[in-house]
Formats: sequence, C-alpha cells, structure tokens
Amino acid sequence: MTFTPLTGVIPPVCTPLTPDREVDVPSLLRLVGHLVSGGVHGLFVLGSTSEAAYLTDGQRRSVVEAVTKHVGGQLPVLAGAIDMTTPRVLDHVASVSAAGADAVVVTAPFYARTHPAEIAGHYRAVAAASPVPVIAYDIPVAVHTKLPPDVLLELAADGVLAGLKDSSGDLAAFREVVTAVRDHEDVTGFSVLTGSELIVDAALAISADGTVPGLGNVDPHGYVRLDGLCRAGEWKEARAEQERLCALFGLVSVGDPARMGPGSSAIGGFKAALHLRGVIDCPVTARPQVPLSPDEVARVRTYLVAAGLL
Amino acid sequence: MTFTPLTGVIPPVCTPLTPDREVDVPSLLRLVGHLVSGGVHGLFVLGSTSEAAYLTDGQRRSVVEAVTKHVGGQLPVLAGAIDMTTPRVLDHVASVSAAGADAVVVTAPFYARTHPAEIAGHYRAVAAASPVPVIAYDIPVAVHTKLPPDVLLELAADGVLAGLKDSSGDLAAFREVVTAVRDHEDVTGFSVLTGSELIVDAALAISADGTVPGLGNVDPHGYVRLDGLCRAGEWKEARAEQERLCALFGLVSVGDPARMGPGSSAIGGFKAALHLRGVIDCPVTARPQVPLSPDEVARVRTYLVAAGLL
Amino acid sequence: MTFTPLTGVIPPVCTPLTPDREVDVPSLLRLVGHLVSGGVHGLFVLGSTSEAAYLTDGQRRSVVEAVTKHVGGQLPVLAGAIDMTTPRVLDHVASVSAAGADAVVVTAPFYARTHPAEIAGHYRAVAAASPVPVIAYDIPVAVHTKLPPDVLLELAADGVLAGLKDSSGDLAAFREVVTAVRDHEDVTGFSVLTGSELIVDAALAISADGTVPGLGNVDPHGYVRLDGLCRAGEWKEARAEQERLCALFGLVSVGDPARMGPGSSAIGGFKAALHLRGVIDCPVTARPQVPLSPDEVARVRTYLVAAGLL
Amino acid sequence: MTFTPLTGVIPPVCTPLTPDREVDVPSLLRLVGHLVSGGVHGLFVLGSTSEAAYLTDGQRRSVVEAVTKHVGGQLPVLAGAIDMTTPRVLDHVASVSAAGADAVVVTAPFYARTHPAEIAGHYRAVAAASPVPVIAYDIPVAVHTKLPPDVLLELAADGVLAGLKDSSGDLAAFREVVTAVRDHEDVTGFSVLTGSELIVDAALAISADGTVPGLGNVDPHGYVRLDGLCRAGEWKEARAEQERLCALFGLVSVGDPARMGPGSSAIGGFKAALHLRGVIDCPVTARPQVPLSPDEVARVRTYLVAAGLL
Repeated sequence: MTFTPLTGVIPPVCTPLTPDREVDVPSLLRLVGHLVSGGVHGLFVLGSTSEAAYLTDGQRRSVVEAVTKHVGGQLPVLAGAIDMTTPRVLDHVASVSAAGADAVVVTAPFYARTHPAEIAGHYRAVAAASPVPVIAYDIPVAVHTKLPPDVLLELAADGVLAGLKDSSGDLAAFREVVTAVRDHEDVTGFSVLTGSELIVDAALAISADGTVPGLGNVDPHGYVRLDGLCRAGEWKEARAEQERLCALFGLVSVGDPARMGPGSSAIGGFKAALHLRGVIDCPVTARPQVPLSPDEVARVRTYLVAAGLL
Repeated sequence: MTFTPLTGVIPPVCTPLTPDREVDVPSLLRLVGHLVSGGVHGLFVLGSTSEAAYLTDGQRRSVVEAVTKHVGGQLPVLAGAIDMTTPRVLDHVASVSAAGADAVVVTAPFYARTHPAEIAGHYRAVAAASPVPVIAYDIPVAVHTKLPPDVLLELAADGVLAGLKDSSGDLAAFREVVTAVRDHEDVTGFSVLTGSELIVDAALAISADGTVPGLGNVDPHGYVRLDGLCRAGEWKEARAEQERLCALFGLVSVGDPARMGPGSSAIGGFKAALHLRGVIDCPVTARPQVPLSPDEVARVRTYLVAAGLL
Repeated sequence: MTFTPLTGVIPPVCTPLTPDREVDVPSLLRLVGHLVSGGVHGLFVLGSTSEAAYLTDGQRRSVVEAVTKHVGGQLPVLAGAIDMTTPRVLDHVASVSAAGADAVVVTAPFYARTHPAEIAGHYRAVAAASPVPVIAYDIPVAVHTKLPPDVLLELAADGVLAGLKDSSGDLAAFREVVTAVRDHEDVTGFSVLTGSELIVDAALAISADGTVPGLGNVDPHGYVRLDGLCRAGEWKEARAEQERLCALFGLVSVGDPARMGPGSSAIGGFKAALHLRGVIDCPVTARPQVPLSPDEVARVRTYLVAAGLL
Repeated sequence: MTFTPLTGVIPPVCTPLTPDREVDVPSLLRLVGHLVSGGVHGLFVLGSTSEAAYLTDGQRRSVVEAVTKHVGGQLPVLAGAIDMTTPRVLDHVASVSAAGADAVVVTAPFYARTHPAEIAGHYRAVAAASPVPVIAYDIPVAVHTKLPPDVLLELAADGVLAGLKDSSGDLAAFREVVTAVRDHEDVTGFSVLTGSELIVDAALAISADGTVPGLGNVDPHGYVRLDGLCRAGEWKEARAEQERLCALFGLVSVGDPARMGPGSSAIGGFKAALHLRGVIDCPVTARPQVPLSPDEVARVRTYLVAAGLL
C-alpha cells in the first residue's frame, strides 16, 4: 500500500467503557463521529490516552475493528501496538493490521532494560514483519527511555520508519528530528507529529507535520481551528486559540494527588468531559485507576464552561 | 489448595530458545532437571530472568505447561503474570493458573504512571480473581516504582498477598518488610524472598524466607549449599560460598556496554553459561537483545572455570 | 533601586581561565566586549555556562567585580549565587551584590532533598535579605528538581521574584508560567527568560521576555539578530536564523562520551570556539572537566566554518 | 602522617544551632561528649546529617575547630568537604585540615554533570593537594551519581583514597568493594564504612570495617553495642539490637510529607530526639528546612520511650 504522509490533527481516541469495564462500542463510535465532524485528519486508537496499557488483547481488537469498519477508509486509522519487546509487539501488529489499521505506532522496548542498538534492532524487526507502515512513539514518561535522534534519523533514512509521534515534551530534540528529516535527501514520506497538546503552535511553527492531542477528544474543533491558523500563518490568532486550549487542559489535574496518580486524573478528566458533553455514556476508567470524585467532576465542568464547551 | 509458605532456593528459570527463537522444550526440561537435581526448593517461571517480557502469550503458556507437567507437583512452581495493568495481568493469571502454576508473581503497574493507592487496588483486584496465591514482585529497575513497605504490609495483613519477591536491591526496605510481617500478628503464611543473588547470606541472616537467584540457573548446587549453611548458622562458610558466587556473577557483565544493554549481557551470560555447561542446546536470546560475541562467550567460560563449574 | 524588566539577549558569560586555571581577566573583558559589540541586552555571569560550580569564592568575586566595573552600568549584569541552601546562597548574594551585580540568579536547593514548601521558603528568605532583585533559575539537570509553576506564580505575585530563567527544556511548563504572569493582575515587572538556545523563536512566539543562550558566547550577533526578527514578527526569517544556530550548536557534542561527560564537552566546545575566534587566550576548562582532544577541537572549527564564523 | 584504618562506630555529628541559627558550640560539645561517653570510635563532622549543605563556610570552620580542640586527638575526627567540584572542594579541604581534621570526606562532583573519568580525576586532584587522607563519600541521593566500584578500586590501589563511606543503600555494590579491597594485594589501609544504619549487622557480616550511623547521634550506646556484638560473632543478639535501632529509626519519618521533604523530617527528628534527651539546647534546623510541629515532636518522644531512651 502507499501511505501518504500524515498531517493535521490526529487525536489519540479515548476508549469508552461500560460500567462493568467492557469496551462501549456505541459510545466509541459516537466519539469517532464527534472527532470526524470536528474535522480531524486521522485517528490514533490504542495509544496511551486510549488506555491501551489497560485493555486486554480482546478489547484492543474490538476497538480497532469497530473504528476501522465505522470509518471505512474516510481517514487514516493508526493503531498502537504497545507492548514490552519485539515478539510481543509483533503479535499486536499482526492483530491490528488484520483488523484494518493503516499504520502501527510502536514504542521503544520497556520493562526490559534497553540500549540504542536494541531499539534500532527492535524497529527493524517490527518493520520487516509489519504489513503496514511503522511509526515510532517517543514517550519517555511511560517507557523510561528517550528515542535518540540519531537512531530515528538512521531508521527514517533506511525507510524503516514512516513517522514519529513525539510525546517527550522536549521541543529542542523534536526540532532536531524535524529539521533533519526535512533536509535529509534520503528521507521521504516521513511524518513528524507532536503529542504535546500545549505547544502545537510552536511545533507547527518549526515545521512539524501534525499533532496528536489527547485534549483533542474533548475539543476537536479547537485543535482543527488551531491547525488551520498555524498553516495559514495566522500566528497571533493561533496563539490565542492555543492559550484557550491550554486553559482547558487544566481539567487533567482535577484529581487529588493524595488519592490518585496523574494518569487516573488525566484520563478521568478527559472521560468526565466527554460524558458531560454528552459524547459517551459512562466516564468509567479501567482498573486500577482511581475514579474522580463528584467534586472533581464538578471542576471538570467548570473548565468546560470556561472554554465555551458547555 | 493450601499453600505452604515458600522457603529455600527458588530460581527464576531461564527460557531456552531454539535458533529460530521458539521455546526449546527439551532444553527447558533439561534445565528443570538440572535445577531439581541441584536441590532447589521451588521454581519460578516467566520471571524477568526467564525473558517473560520477550515471550509471546503462546510461548508463555508452553513454558508453564511443560514445566508443571514435568515437575508433577514435586515442588512448587510459581509463574510470573507480567503485564502493564490489572485487566492484562488477569488474563495472564487465568492462563498460567489453568496451566498448573501454584502461585502467580505480579509487579506493580507499569507503562501507565501509578500511585500507592492504585498499586494496592491492583493487587486487591488480582487476588480477588486469582485461583492461586499472589506474590508481589518488587522490581523498580523494570517497572520504575518501588513497592511501598506500608502498602505491602497492609496487603499481607489483609491476606491479599502470599509473599514478596524483592528485586529492589534495597536491603533496608526489605528488612522493614521482613521484620514487620514476622512481628505482625495478623500476617501468617507470608513468604519474603530476595532476588538479590549477591547478598543471600545477608538476607537470610535478617530472616528472609528464601531466595530467587538468577545465577541459580548456572549454579543451583552453590545456592542450595549457601542456603543450607545460612540455615545452619554457619555464617563464615556461608560468606565464603556467597563470595564464590559473587565472583561467578561477573559473567553477567561480559557484554560490551557500547554494543548492548545490561539485560542483553546478563541474560546472554546466563544462557552462554548453561550452554557451555551442556544444559541447554542453544544460547540464543529473544529479540531485540544483542547476542554476545565469541570473545564475550570465552569470558563467560573463564568465569565458569574459575568457579569450578567447568 | 528600580529594576526594569529584562528583555532581549542576556548570554551566560563564559569564564576564561589561564593555563594554570586562574580567572583570565583580560580575556574575560575581551569576551564581554565581544558580547556588547554583538548587541546583547544584558550579561549573566556565574551561571552554569560560566562554570560557576567550578569557581572558588575568590574567583567568583573577581569575575563579578571585573565585569561590573568594565560594563559601568551600560547594561544590566546578573550574577548567579549558586549554592546548596539558603545560608550558603545568602553569602554569595551578599558578595556579588557588593561587587556590583544588578540582580542575583538563584536555583532551588540541591544536594539536600527538597520540597515545594522548602523551595518557596528558600526564595522568600533569599529575597528578604537580598539588596537586589532575585531571579529564579530552573535547571533540573543540575539540581534534580523542577520549579513548580504554582510556586513560581505565588512568589511572582508576592513580589518575591523578579523573574525566571528557565533551563528545564520543558516549553509547555514554561508557557504555563509565561501566560500566567502576563495575565495575573498582581504580577508586574516579572521577566520570563528561556535558557533553551535551540527554541528561542518558539519561546519568544509564546511571549517570553528574553533569552539566555550559552551559544550566545560564540555567536552573539546571531542571537541578537534572531531576537530582532522575532520581535518584528519575521517568523520565517527567524526560523532560518534559529536553524543556523541549531546547526552551530552541534559543537557542544564533539567530546567523546567514552572519555568525558556532556558538561566537559559543551563547555569545552564553547571555549574552543571562543579561542578559535580569537576572543579568549586559552580554552582550558576547570577541573575535573576533561579537555577536548585536538581532533575534537578540529571538529569545533568545522562547525564555526559552516556557520560562517571563521 | 600515618593513618590507622578506621573501624567501629563513627557517627556523623549533628550540628546544633541556636534559635537564630548560629552554631551552638556548647550544645555541640555536649553532643560530642554524649557520643564519646557512648563509646564511639571516631567522629564525622560536616557530613549530610551534620547539615553541611546548610552551613556557611564560617559555620563549618567553627564546627571543626570546636570539635577537634575539644577531642584533642582522643579519637579521629573526619570532616566533610562537601562542595560541587574540585576547586571548591580544595578550599574546604584546606580549611578543615587547617582546623585539625584528621581526614576529609569528599563526594563525587555534583550540580555539574559528571563522568567516571571526571570522578577519578576529581579524587586524584583532591588527594594530591590534601594534607590529610581522603575518604570517598558515595551518596547518590544527594549527588545523583553512584561511585563506580571499578573507579573506587583503582583509586584505592593507587593510594589515592584511604576509605569509602557508603550511603548508597546498595549492599551488593558495597560488598563488591569490600571484597575487592580485602583481596587486592595493592590495597592497604583502606577503610570501608557503611552509612546504612539499618543494616549494620549485615554490613559488618560481609567484612565492612565500620559504620557511620546518623541515628548514632540519638543512641550511640546502641550502635557501639551492636558493633561489639557483630565483632564477637554474636549474630543473633546483634540482630535483636539492630532491630531495636530500626524501630527507633521510625523517628525520621514523623514529618508530614505534604508539608516538608524527607530531609527536614529526618534532621528534624534527630534534633528533636537530642533535645528531648537533654543533649542539645534547641532543636532548630537550618533554612529552608521546615520545622516539625509539636505533634510530630510528640511522636519522636514516643519512639524514644519505646526504645528505652526516655
């Protein structure tokens, strides 16, 4: 297959659950509809924001099948193949590509201690076996390793990788990759995407191809508007829109840090917001995440109202 | 079933692979025989030393089935259920307990950012669903969280956990748990095991119940001897035996750090030693680990000779 | 004294040493002249790039005295007061303010384990005793703590701090501070400066007041040009200039990581470049930093030539 | 001078302060008397437990002068020379050795990013200039680097270092050094001391020379008793005594983690205990540490009572 480089807004799609924590497919498809009608340019299922780390293999399969079938090729669907090492990732790659994913998104090895040479070998082995393009997922907060820019460039030049989704928060290192792939004559069709939803204007200003904003679940229209303003060079207006979204992002921190971790708070906040906006039926998160309290949900509502979303 | 508290030497069993990286069951069973004839008191399959992070679900199942069937109840078989979060761990628990494991060994959540309250909830949910006892696996180098002693004690007192396998290297924190479970009237039948193969004498001296030494694959007789000396109060002889094993442990560091990570070197060293000793057919490790060079394997041989094992 | 908020380019001034590692005052003053003639808007002495961590108290005093006397009030001189805790920092504050510094730059406590409440107390105590304004220095790579945005804002609103020099590399957290101080009615005269020399255009685009680029020692004209382009809204030209400077920044990585740490390589690279450009007499760095080899210095030269500086 | 290898109990001496945070010399000398009458074998002033990171140069000098003069050669006085890099450490070495210290205790470089080659160079340069023996201080929690065993051994064999004070908590790495210096024919007169007050019995069992217990301020008799039992091979009684001290150590955790860092709690706990025991006049700690609340001090009292010290 040919794979047009990805650009624009490609949100990591939340995975709505039923009260007994099964995938809530109707809510999931409503969420996809909400995103598509918001104008997004692609979908990323089974990412960290999708609670991929919490979904069983069966649940992961349900998600990809439901979304790819629903979307029907309208826009590209990327799927995470999140697991510890090459052999386990390859099983996920086979599963999600059979279910219709247009590309797979793969992290560095984790749990096992790793090394740049092993990271390179990992991506080479995954790409050799994958029927769809492979996008590197740089997420040190989860895997505790930063993908080295020189390894990424070597893999891009060799055609092993079709892109990078950067959730490192390190814009200087991201820029090194963006600039190098743009200027490297052997690299073609490589998409550089930022997962840092608070600095999308800055990332696009330095030539990133697109963005993968978790907060885009809650306000896809906002991120699409922001993307458009940046592409039009309307930097002042882009900054205002980004700042509005930054303020909205406060909803990820409503959870009491004495009671829960930052993941429970962030995913809980996204899902509470989607529930309050009427997109999904139930805001429950997967175990062992701690649910938000009613007071914390009330604070999510305040953020939505302030951002003009409720 | 009733579960007698575990004591003694319970090595984490390496997983021999064929040249094309499938589980080599005959070699695995020869390794089990080598350990049993060495006098070990239990077996721990699918731990970190077993390359659990690198084995597919199918391979994990093969390992547990082959070993439990071979052992036939002679000695307890613990099995790792290593995965990121509760729902995924529960799938492994179901699988390995169906395959005959006598207990499951479970880490804190990883990849996802976590919190003590979430760790406690994780173990409670796993234990509620598990047909066999649950042992906590404290391995910060892999999961990037240290199990808090107070959480462990609460779970031990509530009967959620049947034991701790500590690979943190922090003997003071380990002692806090050992002493507290020994002195806590509500805690019964809780086994405290150390995974620190270089300080087994020290761990047993402070009342640990047993040890889970990766190096026990290579020299089970040595660890059984060491365990016996400690139990007999022969501390001076124990120290000498431990120091011999510490010297042997140098074989985990033969790999060139410019070419590979510490995991590749350690697992590669164990497997090379087992191959040189004639226990397993092939020293290959799972991808993306980097293989040892012939020179590095020659250095493994030197360690074996120096320890009187070749 | 009144303190006009700082804007523009305020390089952290390298500290040239003689071959026997005393402060080389003539070279230091030539470097200051080089920066001033390059158009910089302020000077920051005794920062990390100045090797403040390596200078004795006597050497620190020499540097501040020489520079403030030479500059004679032409442009503001900030001085680091880098030490572990409040009492020790206060001694440096007294010393550098007596020597003529216009403001002091102070990190979170380090060596000692710290806490947000202690960080706040630290800055309050320092500011209460300082005769000159206090600027917070956020440099997690050195002090292993990130200054929490909410602590910074509280201290800004209370008039404790006059600014922030951010070397965290975390543009999203930086933006949170930039936006909040701009929008907070109780905060006036607070300067937000970035130390991330590779994303100056991005930082200024999100409303930072100025920049503190280590690489500005080597190419002050470039950073002044970049600052001007950003202020004029010439974002495309700014990006090109920034990318030229990013390429030049490669000179900080010439040192062999098998032989030296990243600090030795970076400071060694800056000083070699200043020596090659004829600004300072001797490129020696303080102990125990490892010197660059002749080959490594030759690579520094290559970077200078490529950037049009030699 | 000749330097007999250190053995036994060498507590890091707390630094009592007056209410306005000057060194309280009478209380300091009473504390020294308390320790000496408790039977300790040496004193370590200006260590981490001494709040060296919080003392000005003038205060540090007062401490060493007062203690060395008071002790008058009765037992060895080690002094910390805690600072970021070689030139600054050398100033402290000159100061404390002039004030009568018998040896200096020096960490790896901190604040500056470092490297094994730079650590080795640091110790070589310090030792070359020091009039008294140099002891390496391994304290990763403070300096964020672990001293590599191979570097320590090289420096021990070359006569650069006279000992190691290990506060890493990593008993396996400590054992590697203990065993290697004992067995290395070129190493003589090298003392290996543990700073881990909760596993003194284990450290002495594996051949450590002595111990540097912060809690020894509060209960020197206990640590001297423990040391004696270990040397007599009375391991069971030693374990009981160590466990009593472990229980007492709970006093370092009385501080509320929502209000203060672990350092404030630990130093605050030691000083509160010394105050409650009538050894020092005032329990105040240096800024910016947060003081214990009256309730927290009451909990310290409970620990003292439980340990039979009040």
